[in-house]
Amino acid sequence: MFETAFTIEWGDCDEAGIVFYPNYFYWFDCTYQRWLRKHGLSQRELRRRFNSVTPLVDVGAQFAGPARYDDELQIRAEVSEWQERRFRIDYKLSVGGVPVVTGFEQRAWATLMETGELRGASVPVEFKELMR
Amino acid sequence: MFETAFTIEWGDCDEAGIVFYPNYFYWFDCTYQRWLRKHGLSQRELRRRFNSVTPLVDVGAQFAGPARYDDELQIRAEVSEWQERRFRIDYKLSVGGVPVVTGFEQRAWATLMETGELRGASVPVEFKELMR
Amino acid sequence: MFETAFTIEWGDCDEAGIVFYPNYFYWFDCTYQRWLRKHGLSQRELRRRFNSVTPLVDVGAQFAGPARYDDELQIRAEVSEWQERRFRIDYKLSVGGVPVVTGFEQRAWATLMETGELRGASVPVEFKELMR
Amino acid sequence: MFETAFTIEWGDCDEAGIVFYPNYFYWFDCTYQRWLRKHGLSQRELRRRFNSVTPLVDVGAQFAGPARYDDELQIRAEVSEWQERRFRIDYKLSVGGVPVVTGFEQRAWATLMETGELRGASVPVEFKELMR
Repeated sequence: MFETAFTIEWGDCDEAGIVFYPNYFYWFDCTYQRWLRKHGLSQRELRRRFNSVTPLVDVGAQFAGPARYDDELQIRAEVSEWQERRFRIDYKLSVGGVPVVTGFEQRAWATLMETGELRGASVPVEFKELMR
Repeated sequence: MFETAFTIEWGDCDEAGIVFYPNYFYWFDCTYQRWLRKHGLSQRELRRRFNSVTPLVDVGAQFAGPARYDDELQIRAEVSEWQERRFRIDYKLSVGGVPVVTGFEQRAWATLMETGELRGASVPVEFKELMR
Repeated sequence: MFETAFTIEWGDCDEAGIVFYPNYFYWFDCTYQRWLRKHGLSQRELRRRFNSVTPLVDVGAQFAGPARYDDELQIRAEVSEWQERRFRIDYKLSVGGVPVVTGFEQRAWATLMETGELRGASVPVEFKELMR
Repeated sequence: MFETAFTIEWGDCDEAGIVFYPNYFYWFDCTYQRWLRKHGLSQRELRRRFNSVTPLVDVGAQFAGPARYDDELQIRAEVSEWQERRFRIDYKLSVGGVPVVTGFEQRAWATLMETGELRGASVPVEFKELMR
């Protein structure tokens, strides 16, 4: 489980004064990266240490209410499912304790072949333990 | 049914040379706007003509393969479901005939109250007929 | 004078692995907003308290070196010039003490007329004192 | 000289209903890329054919008036200066013939060394002739 926060900036909102929704996925991705970083990992470190990347397979979000410029967005992330070659992260976003968005990213574990191609592979135990 | 295309720009891709995925939702939204525009509608015209907006309820995307800088992204959009107060648009994205992403946006029909609040309302027949 | 920091996220970089340059202007704008916020101001509070907005007149940036994913970008902002109806903010961005970008935003002070139009007006003394 | 156009999308605007200004630089960059593409070039093709890239040195923009959602932004680009190792592109943006933004990008010509480093180099005559 991992928690972080973002302040919603002027440029993140649309003419209706609420967050332009693709930005929520930007924050999902950033949260994942910050979570990796907390454990000494990163996209580059995953390649160095595991020769692997974690491409997206499936993503989604449900919108419960609006968030606005200047709001502090609290994000709580949790791996809700470990499959052999995939894992799913659930995100809960709220502002001042009020739920705003729930969403998820399902990511694959993929190893870089010498040809440059990606091949699905088992998620390493070491990675699973870090992201508990 | 509506079709459009976008060229993937340098700034749309990440360090791995593939589209940074939140951008796909930006293109979903743009496709919806272009579709409205084709029928003389727009976010503003929806407010003027129907006193309504179409906020997002639920969105998702599955990624079948990568798309890269300079690729022309073909998008095909279709309303796959009309509910009383909601509708769902399915998007199919491909590059040179090869599927890249499938996704959807479920939107609500909401009327602006005098108080400024939004209230769910029945999707007008006129709107349904335009978006067939 | 005001200082803040941003972590460069995966989605902020391009295929060359360096920041896609329009993002620097996003951070300039965010820094200005954070600076306002530190003094109890915001775009909305400027409208409420002064009936005014601060539209951009002229902006620029010079690039001294690259910044990359995971780098912490330190930003130092300073009003370098007060004119009667305009002010200029200089931004200095560095990573680990190494200069990356210098830039500026020149903003006008504009009052909202009853017609909805904007008219240039003198920068209030109260605002100048806050942003010293 | 090169001309292109972009439609301003919902997500490109801020709460004030006008373009969030960093997006103008995104369009500058896209225009440059489209211009390259017109001549069979691209960021990748520049590397392949010339072993070179064109990093940004200096950029700027002046804002003459607002542009809004649904506006068609006409862009006219021109190389206004060729230096030995640099060139400057001027951009003029208008909506319905009304000037909105003028701006520029100064880019360097840089060759990729075997070490991976970039070294400034003379702009090839072939490139200059294409971009006239």
